[in-house]
Amino acid sequence: MRYQVLVRLKQGVLDVQGKAVETGLKDQKYDAVKNVRVGRVIELDVEGVSKDVALRQVDEVCKLLLANPVIEQYEIKELA
Amino acid sequence: MRYQVLVRLKQGVLDVQGKAVETGLKDQKYDAVKNVRVGRVIELDVEGVSKDVALRQVDEVCKLLLANPVIEQYEIKELA
Repeated sequence: MRYQVLVRLKQGVLDVQGKAVETGLKDQKYDAVKNVRVGRVIELDVEGVSKDVALRQVDEVCKLLLANPVIEQYEIKELA
Repeated sequence: MRYQVLVRLKQGVLDVQGKAVETGLKDQKYDAVKNVRVGRVIELDVEGVSKDVALRQVDEVCKLLLANPVIEQYEIKELA
């Protein structure tokens, strides 16, 4: 099974990278672009285990390595 | 309108970050996890312009600032 994990900063956490993009775009006259938030997308395969176990492993992996639960939230989607 | 942009390394480009995640997971006995690819997700609003113009601007912004077209590909989704 292939899974997609979206990791985003929690609401209220300052997104420095997003602000930098916004500033850069304003300099280029893209004033209509606002509220830029930058996160990570991780795609991975889990092979040789049942669907339940796979999903649980992806969740564990998110907590362990992919997201920082203090400032980030994550969302798991099954791709195929 | 809110848009989501997924930026991923092109097929064939070595994903160093993804390899690092895989190695880290193997050390933790998550051997079932394979083919990890790490990319970026950018979410942004485009306000005060028509839908056509908004989508064109997002595409321009991807080429200009969000993705490196030499090694990365991007995908634009409309969120709302």
